[in-house]
Amino acid sequence: MKNILLLGAGLSASTLIKYLLEHSESENWHLHVVDQNLELIQSKLAGHQRGTAHQFNALDSEARKPYIEKADLVISMLPAIYHVGVAHDCIALQKHLITPSYISAEMGALDASAKAAGIVIMNEIGVDPGIDHMSAMKIIDQIQAAGAELLSFKSYCGGLIAPISDTNQWHYKFTWNPRNVVLAGQGSAAIYKEAGALKYLPYHRLFQQTELINVPGYGQFEAYANRNSISYLDTYGLQDLPTIIRGTLRVPPFCAAWNALIQLGLTEDSYTIKNDGTFTPRMLLNTFIPFKDQRSVEQKLAAFLGSAAHLLPLFEEIGLFDANYIFKATEASPAQYLQELLETAWKLGPTDNDMLVMYHEFIYQKAGLKHKIESSMVAIGSDQRFTAMSDTVGLPVAIAAKLILNQSIQKTGVTLPVYKEIYEPILAELAQYGITFNEYETTI
Amino acid sequence: MKNILLLGAGLSASTLIKYLLEHSESENWHLHVVDQNLELIQSKLAGHQRGTAHQFNALDSEARKPYIEKADLVISMLPAIYHVGVAHDCIALQKHLITPSYISAEMGALDASAKAAGIVIMNEIGVDPGIDHMSAMKIIDQIQAAGAELLSFKSYCGGLIAPISDTNQWHYKFTWNPRNVVLAGQGSAAIYKEAGALKYLPYHRLFQQTELINVPGYGQFEAYANRNSISYLDTYGLQDLPTIIRGTLRVPPFCAAWNALIQLGLTEDSYTIKNDGTFTPRMLLNTFIPFKDQRSVEQKLAAFLGSAAHLLPLFEEIGLFDANYIFKATEASPAQYLQELLETAWKLGPTDNDMLVMYHEFIYQKAGLKHKIESSMVAIGSDQRFTAMSDTVGLPVAIAAKLILNQSIQKTGVTLPVYKEIYEPILAELAQYGITFNEYETTI
Repeated sequence: MKNILLLGAGLSASTLIKYLLEHSESENWHLHVVDQNLELIQSKLAGHQRGTAHQFNALDSEARKPYIEKADLVISMLPAIYHVGVAHDCIALQKHLITPSYISAEMGALDASAKAAGIVIMNEIGVDPGIDHMSAMKIIDQIQAAGAELLSFKSYCGGLIAPISDTNQWHYKFTWNPRNVVLAGQGSAAIYKEAGALKYLPYHRLFQQTELINVPGYGQFEAYANRNSISYLDTYGLQDLPTIIRGTLRVPPFCAAWNALIQLGLTEDSYTIKNDGTFTPRMLLNTFIPFKDQRSVEQKLAAFLGSAAHLLPLFEEIGLFDANYIFKATEASPAQYLQELLETAWKLGPTDNDMLVMYHEFIYQKAGLKHKIESSMVAIGSDQRFTAMSDTVGLPVAIAAKLILNQSIQKTGVTLPVYKEIYEPILAELAQYGITFNEYETTI
Repeated sequence: MKNILLLGAGLSASTLIKYLLEHSESENWHLHVVDQNLELIQSKLAGHQRGTAHQFNALDSEARKPYIEKADLVISMLPAIYHVGVAHDCIALQKHLITPSYISAEMGALDASAKAAGIVIMNEIGVDPGIDHMSAMKIIDQIQAAGAELLSFKSYCGGLIAPISDTNQWHYKFTWNPRNVVLAGQGSAAIYKEAGALKYLPYHRLFQQTELINVPGYGQFEAYANRNSISYLDTYGLQDLPTIIRGTLRVPPFCAAWNALIQLGLTEDSYTIKNDGTFTPRMLLNTFIPFKDQRSVEQKLAAFLGSAAHLLPLFEEIGLFDANYIFKATEASPAQYLQELLETAWKLGPTDNDMLVMYHEFIYQKAGLKHKIESSMVAIGSDQRFTAMSDTVGLPVAIAAKLILNQSIQKTGVTLPVYKEIYEPILAELAQYGITFNEYETTI
């Protein structure tokens, strides 16, 4: 019997645990789950005889070591910064490790040690990163195998709300950490490459310069650029590719309205405004719109928005004009006050389903003709436990665990699923769970 | 005979030293000047028998103490962060101190100690802060003495280039630290108050929302808001004033063109771009403008600028289209690359004269009628030593020194020139040096 040790039983682990238990008889596994929240583990193990709950702090290296020692494979669903600590233990104890997170510089530096220990440390094998790598590399490898030249690769992904649960004008609810959503894109400019030239896009233009795409059956989405698309050139072995851009998907008119919040200054997080106990959303908004004598806040905002004034109802919907609600925070950044409003306006309801949309566009040239391949995947959550996020993160991790334990994957070292021997069986099995890509090829 | 100790003989000290030496016979003073650059001191003392140069590091507390001990009054022209250290010494040795800089929290905390020591620590007595306080308080006190109600106070100041030396389309050259000019306004939003409401203006809108003013004889200027105008309400005792805004002056179309640089992202300083030895201004610019197939950099910038496309010659003038110049920096932020270009384009020539413009606008109400007072001052430098900056910083400091030493000013503690007994004699004497305000009053 093989032991699998899962560190962390949080949101993204539901589908992962379900898969591992469902395959535990046929594969002869026993699943050990560590979390500080015993009830949470027990609710997910649901009394399965091949699952055991262990209640302790998985960040405690000494406490977890005996469990790693007894395991054949470790899965870390801890926050990304803790993976390296687990990796050190796994190298010392010669146990395989899977994490869904990006390979940090520190993690990358462990490659030789992992190889020497004869273990694989498989990373970036959730959805984004994960399914994006696998589905993109499949097509990139096909194009290159056919002797064609790849000219452009654009890849977008978004954690959204299912059409059936889409009940607001922003077409968005929080299926993810609200603070990360409010601060998305702040800091360095986004970096991408277009027609051979490096491009920097500063934060204050990020939600202006968006790209519209169409996903068959799901309508229009718009993408804003992610932080650094350039690093993917190395990941995918495409150093000379003239155009690469990665982005995040929203449903129109989200980006235009969010851009207005940025232009107003309402997403700024570098300073605080005091709330003397009378501070309302209307006052917050008025603080950021230019003075015009005798005009209401609505009129001033409409003047500020100019050609985007038709978006006014979106700002009303999130409560920005509210003169009765008093902010709970006593001193907060504009972004934090905005988040307080949005957490109410964009709260996921108990019966809401999330949706994950992924879209790749490849342009390649062969025999003088240019071709475009569009490849898209839509996953919709079943409920608030088995969300699209939990499915698309958990299934590739679980399948990778199976393939490592049954030695279908024999690669060692610090790696990620950009290799055919890894992505091919995983994509094939994902398709059995309904995670499939629709591909359309046209000549352009 | 009274001894004056001057710490620092840099750019702003020329006129100060000249005044002190010119008055040294009649007032029976001896001036001791400390700087690490002996030649600099000697060139400014010009062999005057009542001046002595001391070459050592004025930041060295032990080295300067014996000199403070022998002095009757100390003037610190050191960088602002060092004034508090000097103040501690002056309190311990019971010597008066003058600094042209803003009262920091630490300096303000020394008020009681300074009073106990029987000394005055006079701050904010250069031009901005300094002449701005004095010229504004004179009118504010007049308005209040007349029983009128002040409704609005706007105050702008700018270090510019004299019309005779104005030879570029930006109407600007560096008379001040270039890095501070390039980064002006970054960080927290600007804060001001308009019609009773607090207003925040984020950096990316700072150079869009400007105010045009007219200075008789000098034409139009435009002002962008300074960091925090609200703190002046306390300084001037005007806590209930509905409108206050302070700003920095430029000559149109500077602000519109600078706004375009901000929108492009060229003033960003939070990340760096590598220069592989081929990086030109044209490449830098192209990095920040959206891709358009088959268009030149000039055409893409014109498209980006839209209705501001007429500003294209200003960007050409600073060399942004240059495809031959290779940046010297090997890795720098966009702001640093931009500064490298501007230091050439906006270099002060050996015969150029600087210009300092100050403008106040007061609106007050009396007997149901609204009145507007505009008050403006223009100072033009004589040469590159006796600049407008050196005159307007040095003269108020020097006059304050005289008034303290002859006991016309008897105030003690940490203070600044917002009191009639201080500003009245200083403004009167400044007028003898041509630093005068033109006042226009109209009913509105």
